[in-house]
Amino acid sequence: MIPVRKAYGRPLDLRQGRVEMMHGSGGRAMAQLIDELFLSRLGNAHPGAGNDAAVLPAAAGRLVVSTDSHVVSPLFFPGGDIGCLSVNGTINDVAVMGATPLYLAAGFILEEGFPLADLARIVDSMAQAAAAAGVPVVTGDTKVVQRGRGDGVYITTTGVGVVADGEDWSGDRARPGDSIIVSGGIGEHGMAIMAQRESIGFAADIVSDTAPLHGLIAAMRASGADIHVVRDPTRGGVATTLNEIARQSRVGMMLRESEVPVQPQVAAACEFLGLDPLYVANEGRLLAIVAAADAERLLAAMRAHPLARHAALIGSVHQDAQCFVQMSTKLGGRRVVDWLSGDQLPRIC
Amino acid sequence: MIPVRKAYGRPLDLRQGRVEMMHGSGGRAMAQLIDELFLSRLGNAHPGAGNDAAVLPAAAGRLVVSTDSHVVSPLFFPGGDIGCLSVNGTINDVAVMGATPLYLAAGFILEEGFPLADLARIVDSMAQAAAAAGVPVVTGDTKVVQRGRGDGVYITTTGVGVVADGEDWSGDRARPGDSIIVSGGIGEHGMAIMAQRESIGFAADIVSDTAPLHGLIAAMRASGADIHVVRDPTRGGVATTLNEIARQSRVGMMLRESEVPVQPQVAAACEFLGLDPLYVANEGRLLAIVAAADAERLLAAMRAHPLARHAALIGSVHQDAQCFVQMSTKLGGRRVVDWLSGDQLPRIC
Repeated sequence: MIPVRKAYGRPLDLRQGRVEMMHGSGGRAMAQLIDELFLSRLGNAHPGAGNDAAVLPAAAGRLVVSTDSHVVSPLFFPGGDIGCLSVNGTINDVAVMGATPLYLAAGFILEEGFPLADLARIVDSMAQAAAAAGVPVVTGDTKVVQRGRGDGVYITTTGVGVVADGEDWSGDRARPGDSIIVSGGIGEHGMAIMAQRESIGFAADIVSDTAPLHGLIAAMRASGADIHVVRDPTRGGVATTLNEIARQSRVGMMLRESEVPVQPQVAAACEFLGLDPLYVANEGRLLAIVAAADAERLLAAMRAHPLARHAALIGSVHQDAQCFVQMSTKLGGRRVVDWLSGDQLPRIC
Repeated sequence: MIPVRKAYGRPLDLRQGRVEMMHGSGGRAMAQLIDELFLSRLGNAHPGAGNDAAVLPAAAGRLVVSTDSHVVSPLFFPGGDIGCLSVNGTINDVAVMGATPLYLAAGFILEEGFPLADLARIVDSMAQAAAAAGVPVVTGDTKVVQRGRGDGVYITTTGVGVVADGEDWSGDRARPGDSIIVSGGIGEHGMAIMAQRESIGFAADIVSDTAPLHGLIAAMRASGADIHVVRDPTRGGVATTLNEIARQSRVGMMLRESEVPVQPQVAAACEFLGLDPLYVANEGRLLAIVAAADAERLLAAMRAHPLARHAALIGSVHQDAQCFVQMSTKLGGRRVVDWLSGDQLPRIC
């Protein structure tokens, strides 16, 4: 970002103004947009600000890097918007490696004609989420595409963090006998989006669970439990994430349907739309796979944290060369929880 | 990225296949796209691969982070494509801080219907550029948007590097008396794009200068010259970049038009389109501002590098409270080289 502290003539019209092609062309209009809309909200405190890269203090520990492009539609939804989502989502991808997230970078692709008022609201939301999480946005970029070549705004965030030696959470570390824990009710982000998109009145009170999970994860680490895997079940939901872990670790899993927490209105909305909550995206939940002997200790530590009061032990890991994830149903049966094969929920994050 | 080494039934059709919405929904189709198109090209060598974040060795020195969203149109142009451009551009933003680029992250926003063959060609180009530069792509993300909500592919790359203490190149360090050096002919990237976009036959041999500059920059550092600022003049060109530096450093600048290297075909194409090469984007050139006493030493070191054989001393820095960038013209006059105010070249990078 290029802060050019100078007079631009009239200030940006943040009420009626819209994104124009010249806001992306590198000249005075872009400098004004960055100064008056982005830097004034996201701050400019780090050395290197004003250059094309941020220069930051040396960091102790192995580096952890993650990136996520956000294309959620609609941009605003109950419980959040693309701004806070893009901050929390990337913080979580870094944190689930056992790492401490330190910095965010943000790249914006704006569509010509997008209201500056909406953009300001989104950047405000990013700024608040970043401040609440204590993970600043230290550098960024803005591009503009013509009408009909975007959809308001897309935001790609990249997170940089550090992880100490010896912290080795990874999707390939689930072992037969381990317990599977989820941190709370599932499917809330996806159904908040779908209720808005499909105008389902009775589901209008479903709120996205978007939240930064690094504080919860720090509390989990502090419990001393022998944690093997932590993962946030976003696109594809709990079912897809568990299948990924099963495949990476070459194990099978058995879930107990009766133990999986699902809010009644989420269950109702899923039934109405013919969706399975196991496949619906979460943005503030995590799955933890932990040595069985430590499961209760970990559960207690999690339930003491505001983001995991409804944490539940939902299943266990076993040997299975075919890496199947299965579920014992409320009716006493058993079914395979397969990979998502089709296109259940496009543009959910 | 989620490598799921399993059988997907039929392999991806990289000849006739197209991006579908289900390639972004987190399920089996997405896993196949990532496995067969992305990971097979960009590699999967780092610990943490298979998780949502890359875990990398500890890095000595201050961290440098930069991000850039790439929306160039057309996607393929003489001398390059969005793939190598997105690698080189971000490497350069890290390198111009005097830093050593270490890693790249890449977020892809794909438009439904985009040919997989074109996507493979772009990812091949990224892989080759990353390998040539010695800066691997260590993590990534893929999203899909509906037809008419994107434009083939947008790529946001983030670079992470390190800079030693004492290396403090920054846009606010230009001082009166300093010399201004450009590493080669200007405007080549922008005019290669424009010639393609506007089908200007006589300009068809203009080739983008896209290149990674960290090797050249290392050679410049090794020269021992007292370098104050290095910057790559991309969007907005040399004129905009020098205005930014002048403003940050609170100095004026005087360029000599006769010394500014412009290829004849670039000059001709600019004249045909009514453009000023000083405002046209470069993707493999840099500007260096250096203590005057060291200018010749730095020029010699630059000219010994293949990417800067035509490096030229094009002007100098002086005191000016108004921070004007001016140019003495070939005709003996003098003009102000102002900020770009309009929308000269949309979607040039």
